Amino acid sequence: MDAGLLSPVSVGHDGAVSDAAIGGALIAAETALVRAWSAVGAAPHEVGELVSQHLGWQGAGHPCVLRGFPLAQLTADAVSGGNPVIPLVAVLRERVPESTRSWVHRGATSQDIMDSALMLTAKRAVAEVRLHLDETCSALRSFAQAHRDEVVVARTLTQQAVPTTVGLRAANWWRGIDRATHRLDEAASALPAQLAGAGGTLASFAEIGGIDAARALPGRFAAELGLQEPEAPWHTERWPVTELGDALVQVIDALGKLAADVTTLSRTEIGELAEGAGGGSSAMPQKRNPARSVLIRSAAIRAPHLGATLHAASALAVDERPDGAWHAEWPALRELLRAALGASAQARTVAHGLRVDAGAGARNLGRSGGLVLAERLNLVLGPRIGPGAVSDLVARASRGEDLRAILAADPAVAQAGVDLDALLDPAQYTGLAAALVDELSADRSRTD
Amino acid sequence: MDAGLLSPVSVGHDGAVSDAAIGGALIAAETALVRAWSAVGAAPHEVGELVSQHLGWQGAGHPCVLRGFPLAQLTADAVSGGNPVIPLVAVLRERVPESTRSWVHRGATSQDIMDSALMLTAKRAVAEVRLHLDETCSALRSFAQAHRDEVVVARTLTQQAVPTTVGLRAANWWRGIDRATHRLDEAASALPAQLAGAGGTLASFAEIGGIDAARALPGRFAAELGLQEPEAPWHTERWPVTELGDALVQVIDALGKLAADVTTLSRTEIGELAEGAGGGSSAMPQKRNPARSVLIRSAAIRAPHLGATLHAASALAVDERPDGAWHAEWPALRELLRAALGASAQARTVAHGLRVDAGAGARNLGRSGGLVLAERLNLVLGPRIGPGAVSDLVARASRGEDLRAILAADPAVAQAGVDLDALLDPAQYTGLAAALVDELSADRSRTD
Amino acid sequence: MDAGLLSPVSVGHDGAVSDAAIGGALIAAETALVRAWSAVGAAPHEVGELVSQHLGWQGAGHPCVLRGFPLAQLTADAVSGGNPVIPLVAVLRERVPESTRSWVHRGATSQDIMDSALMLTAKRAVAEVRLHLDETCSALRSFAQAHRDEVVVARTLTQQAVPTTVGLRAANWWRGIDRATHRLDEAASALPAQLAGAGGTLASFAEIGGIDAARALPGRFAAELGLQEPEAPWHTERWPVTELGDALVQVIDALGKLAADVTTLSRTEIGELAEGAGGGSSAMPQKRNPARSVLIRSAAIRAPHLGATLHAASALAVDERPDGAWHAEWPALRELLRAALGASAQARTVAHGLRVDAGAGARNLGRSGGLVLAERLNLVLGPRIGPGAVSDLVARASRGEDLRAILAADPAVAQAGVDLDALLDPAQYTGLAAALVDELSADRSRTD
Amino acid sequence: MDAGLLSPVSVGHDGAVSDAAIGGALIAAETALVRAWSAVGAAPHEVGELVSQHLGWQGAGHPCVLRGFPLAQLTADAVSGGNPVIPLVAVLRERVPESTRSWVHRGATSQDIMDSALMLTAKRAVAEVRLHLDETCSALRSFAQAHRDEVVVARTLTQQAVPTTVGLRAANWWRGIDRATHRLDEAASALPAQLAGAGGTLASFAEIGGIDAARALPGRFAAELGLQEPEAPWHTERWPVTELGDALVQVIDALGKLAADVTTLSRTEIGELAEGAGGGSSAMPQKRNPARSVLIRSAAIRAPHLGATLHAASALAVDERPDGAWHAEWPALRELLRAALGASAQARTVAHGLRVDAGAGARNLGRSGGLVLAERLNLVLGPRIGPGAVSDLVARASRGEDLRAILAADPAVAQAGVDLDALLDPAQYTGLAAALVDELSADRSRTD
Repeated sequence: MDAGLLSPVSVGHDGAVSDAAIGGALIAAETALVRAWSAVGAAPHEVGELVSQHLGWQGAGHPCVLRGFPLAQLTADAVSGGNPVIPLVAVLRERVPESTRSWVHRGATSQDIMDSALMLTAKRAVAEVRLHLDETCSALRSFAQAHRDEVVVARTLTQQAVPTTVGLRAANWWRGIDRATHRLDEAASALPAQLAGAGGTLASFAEIGGIDAARALPGRFAAELGLQEPEAPWHTERWPVTELGDALVQVIDALGKLAADVTTLSRTEIGELAEGAGGGSSAMPQKRNPARSVLIRSAAIRAPHLGATLHAASALAVDERPDGAWHAEWPALRELLRAALGASAQARTVAHGLRVDAGAGARNLGRSGGLVLAERLNLVLGPRIGPGAVSDLVARASRGEDLRAILAADPAVAQAGVDLDALLDPAQYTGLAAALVDELSADRSRTD
Repeated sequence: MDAGLLSPVSVGHDGAVSDAAIGGALIAAETALVRAWSAVGAAPHEVGELVSQHLGWQGAGHPCVLRGFPLAQLTADAVSGGNPVIPLVAVLRERVPESTRSWVHRGATSQDIMDSALMLTAKRAVAEVRLHLDETCSALRSFAQAHRDEVVVARTLTQQAVPTTVGLRAANWWRGIDRATHRLDEAASALPAQLAGAGGTLASFAEIGGIDAARALPGRFAAELGLQEPEAPWHTERWPVTELGDALVQVIDALGKLAADVTTLSRTEIGELAEGAGGGSSAMPQKRNPARSVLIRSAAIRAPHLGATLHAASALAVDERPDGAWHAEWPALRELLRAALGASAQARTVAHGLRVDAGAGARNLGRSGGLVLAERLNLVLGPRIGPGAVSDLVARASRGEDLRAILAADPAVAQAGVDLDALLDPAQYTGLAAALVDELSADRSRTD
Repeated sequence: MDAGLLSPVSVGHDGAVSDAAIGGALIAAETALVRAWSAVGAAPHEVGELVSQHLGWQGAGHPCVLRGFPLAQLTADAVSGGNPVIPLVAVLRERVPESTRSWVHRGATSQDIMDSALMLTAKRAVAEVRLHLDETCSALRSFAQAHRDEVVVARTLTQQAVPTTVGLRAANWWRGIDRATHRLDEAASALPAQLAGAGGTLASFAEIGGIDAARALPGRFAAELGLQEPEAPWHTERWPVTELGDALVQVIDALGKLAADVTTLSRTEIGELAEGAGGGSSAMPQKRNPARSVLIRSAAIRAPHLGATLHAASALAVDERPDGAWHAEWPALRELLRAALGASAQARTVAHGLRVDAGAGARNLGRSGGLVLAERLNLVLGPRIGPGAVSDLVARASRGEDLRAILAADPAVAQAGVDLDALLDPAQYTGLAAALVDELSADRSRTD
Repeated sequence: MDAGLLSPVSVGHDGAVSDAAIGGALIAAETALVRAWSAVGAAPHEVGELVSQHLGWQGAGHPCVLRGFPLAQLTADAVSGGNPVIPLVAVLRERVPESTRSWVHRGATSQDIMDSALMLTAKRAVAEVRLHLDETCSALRSFAQAHRDEVVVARTLTQQAVPTTVGLRAANWWRGIDRATHRLDEAASALPAQLAGAGGTLASFAEIGGIDAARALPGRFAAELGLQEPEAPWHTERWPVTELGDALVQVIDALGKLAADVTTLSRTEIGELAEGAGGGSSAMPQKRNPARSVLIRSAAIRAPHLGATLHAASALAVDERPDGAWHAEWPALRELLRAALGASAQARTVAHGLRVDAGAGARNLGRSGGLVLAERLNLVLGPRIGPGAVSDLVARASRGEDLRAILAADPAVAQAGVDLDALLDPAQYTGLAAALVDELSADRSRTD
């Protein structure tokens, strides 16, 4: 795998989808097949054990250990056949005892091994993403509680609109991430192994081991890999790939929303938020670049296109193995997993380090001289002094007069007997913000 | 809506997402809000009823009747504000009795109305898509049963590989469509209303009706529209849109797979399948264009990009209402619904009319002179006469000699005592094909 | 065409790609073919004239007038054949004198007519986009000259970095738009007609009129439509579509960059720019939504996906007419033209109305107390008092001390004999900004 | 860079975009800047030379030699700053003589170095792609000439339509590739260096070397790298990236069209074409997988999404350096270059090895019993015996009667005095096919 020179978002976090990991997963798939043949009784029991020993088997859900495996050679030899399984099998057969050799890749087609290995790889990568997401959500939940009642201004179409709270904003972040996490869990728990033979009928397995063995084999094979038994072959029905892809994109979308808010609220002129580790360069010490959020955003811009590639491949699948669509999935899925690994790792750091500048929040809230409460004035004073009169007062304030003074001096307002301090207090116009933070927190505690 | 001159796939099937339908949904959302205000006791009971009468209310889950509504004018006026709700409200207020006027759009923000109307529109469109999908699946299931044991050749990377059955191929189509249908059901059943006010805090609703009313209002509003109560505001957490989009793309992917197989198997030189209504032109009577499958494929090529647009918009959502991302969703979601309506309608027709040319299937299967059973020969004869010997025999056959004759003449084969008729019968090398058709059918019967 | 309820960006600007315009273009393509037959001498001269009169011919480069043409019916009948040309021809033949009837659609295939009509439509739409772009560039050039020396802060990764000028920023906008305009011109000037017959060999034309007529016909046909003569048939070599698409996306990208800066710089807390017609709502009068820029951004988020759809269709073209890829182009190309028409029209308005708030620019520039010149301090003072000493001084300033006072009080700085007023003047650290504005203006004047 | 385990299309062909190549390009950009400082006279002459010696300078247009450079460490350190230039500069400064140290990265911003290094990398990769494309076109041109008059059937919407020639089909392939090559040349010849400083004003360069040096520097810097002088800074006007991306996608589209035809025409049942090296596996010797075309198609499915990512990044560029859009370009551009390198290399092999099965072509052409000439019968006989009569004859033939016999037996046909042998000879209904092959060849010879 490239070292990440051009993908800083995932540097240090993409080992689960490295070439070594995928190579190990391919060998694990081959090994699992031999183990399954033994388990269903078609091959002698010791065959599965011997092959496991010789091929670095690490147990269900793990790639095999690569022992000086010639990955680069395999890769080079993959071109003529279109995939690395054909040269892989030759190498593996040399590495196992002769008595077991015939059971390696027995009855399988390349796609069985590739698909299963990719699902195994995906499963492991997703587990890591999940850890990042859990920590991110946990940090954001604490953050939301800590800033539950901190009033700031809500912005719509880039303009200050009405008050909200830091807590509600953060609760929305985690809610989005939490929802995506659920989708990811669903997708990850459904990741199937593939075992169907050259044409998707399992005829080869039935020929070798009989019908009963052929029926039992996919479930056994899946169990060896820690994957789900496939309902049926999915050589050209690719929802296991697109459902996973959709969930990964949704995860990155949700992280992208967080990052978009962090970069925006970190703007020098807004300054309500800062990444904990935002480093000022010596040359421009005034800068506190929200570098991790920037990297998350870079992943969020790319991810929809990677997800769409998987859908295109799915929609174009033809025959019993397609002429290009299948091959298009591999790099797109890997890159999407990698982006999710990186973006979630960066988000975890962002979530843990996020700092609020309460002073900036208050200053921004106060910038409009109370006009962020214009909607409220309409609602409260409109029925009492007439909407036209409210508009006039507000219009004067928006031309620069002091809103409180105008209101205090207006006889109709005075007659209405409104408590101006309360009316103009942004903290008293945050509706259900605090309640939503509490409810969302409670919901999440339950499901965790 | 354009008449479909450039989108033949959806002609006659896109009424549910027409401008009229969306206009009616926008009015329904405004009406539902007034009804909800009455229902929670903040507005007098008759206000909801009066407004309903004047605005063409049709009941939960339906758009309002448009009574000479100036849609084009609304649209033209939408530009300066960026959305059609602002001019809409002015028109609606003129149409209701004066006593109810102040309750129209009370406390709401444009996004509450737009989002809710789009969800209502989506819900109705999806219900129609579902009908198409159900009929498609039902037809394909019958088709699969009818052709359960019809042996044809499976193709991988465009090449004849091993035998399979028409039934298994069809079962796989329906399985993909069925899975996507489940995803669509999940997404459709979760479509939420939106009601959150200018900044997502519901402060305006609380100001108008008190905290309890503000808490009750979204649920009541959603019920009036036949939508789900939102867990919380989703102004800038857009998974309700992307999850729906993902499901729609998955539906179109699955239909695309069906269409890809139909166009391929309809090729003049293959000829195993034909669309029922494939019309030969008078100029070229030999052509039987799989026209509907071609249209489905056109939707399948486009859909991933439309789904990706929704994800991009979701990932870029910023603030409490974004500066462009929200607006980008609307046309993409409509076009995706439209594509799904059209593709599913065409698929229904294809599924009902699909015709198998058994003669062509048999001819294709026999083209290789038995070499589609080469894998089986290796499995059966390899252990008896040695893999090298099998390869030699097969190599001779692939140079043109008669495979059965070669085998019959080979002393080692004779000694092995294999029943050559059985060995070379493709119908005896279809593995679990028939069993898979039955199991998949049974599964589906249960869930329907 | 839909009235734009969900596409406010293009409301009022998409007539050139309406169903009526496309219907007229289809008829123009059919008429042009008859005229070409007459022009090359294969058909009697009067045939071309008669057909032109009966079908509403308006001259080269124009769609025919639709006279009560049953577009909706055509559209409905398009489904079974997959495109609207087949039913169109039947209608057209009824409308022309019997003596000319046989020349309608003579020798052509549906794709000849569809492709040519789409190119005609595109050419007209692009001409309109060009007008919008010219006016946009012209307004931005004036704007850049007017604000050539107005110093503001440049921002990188959301943080204030160093000074720049309003003029340079605007010059960059127009430069991007200007470049895209050149690309669009190139693409538009190359738009070819299509005339190749059923299989792309022009055999039908040669059969009807002889080889010489077949050679002359495409050029004549193209000239009648105001399009380029095709180098060769492009039924399945689709660069004329993707090159146009790429140029349109590039145009929208460039407008998107402008819009992104306008929405950002219009943020309440930044406030350096405002759209001229940014309307404050009565409810929230403090808001000045950059509504048109928001709409442009919505187009910019969608456009890359539409362009990618065209490339996908191009890459998947197979045979002599593809089984879905061709049909996928039509709605994507129309929507892309529509987005370009709308975005460029909105940009024109934005460019004309753009207002600078010089006070806000100065305030933002001053926010850091001079630290936006930290880079300059390093460059100027570093060599004289040592980089470490500069860092110390700057670090103190970034903790809140007055930068000028610190510098003035520092003996080493004093000894260095630097003019502090000049050093700390942002206007003296704008490098080539003014020169770039002038050069870019001059370049553009030349090419216009 | 990953070894290509999941990207077999580019295995062995992606060295030009490896991490090592990019690392060398980054160092070359830093070195070129020092050389430019010397060249414009701001730095002593020997500084440029010394730095060149110490940093492995290889001359204009080449990356520097990496001498035990800690790429992985750089990459790891890139995360906090968001790009690898910051840690790179520290390393480089240690490696040069102290006297030259201050000139390393003097006045530059990270983006200057990154953008320039990516353009250098792109230029080299494109040069390699060009070689592949030239050889591909050359081979296809010879192929087209060799098969100029070989008649086969043209297919539209998957159905046999009318005759065409192998030569014309191949000429169209090369025409598409040739056109894309021209686009690529244009884009490659315009690739600019970037040198603009922190805010895009070149203020730092002017401060260091004076205005004249600042004006001269970018051109000098570009020359050192073998790149074009930028018209102006393009930190956030990203057409140099998208124009390159568009050209690369167009190249891959054109190769995709070739590959789509090769896979289709290689179908067992069609068999008109085969890849030279299509390897039959021992298990299924009847298969001749068009493996390289399959890999090209996998690239063609992915490429539009990668190109769209670049456009999305361009359209979202904000400020004087964007908060994520810039970073999103890097991996997308690299992957696109890599796909182009791989697809063009595979296409070269395909083009050189392509084999025609003339027998299969003739058999397919004859399948319809002459009905592929139905269009011609209409054109020739229609005017003589009436279109209705032709339809009747053709209808009988399409029901299985022998077309020639029917025609021969028909009195009206006999009376018309048509030469039936000529009429039914597909080779006499190929229109301009041969002429187009010759003209296109001639055109290309001229431009080469």
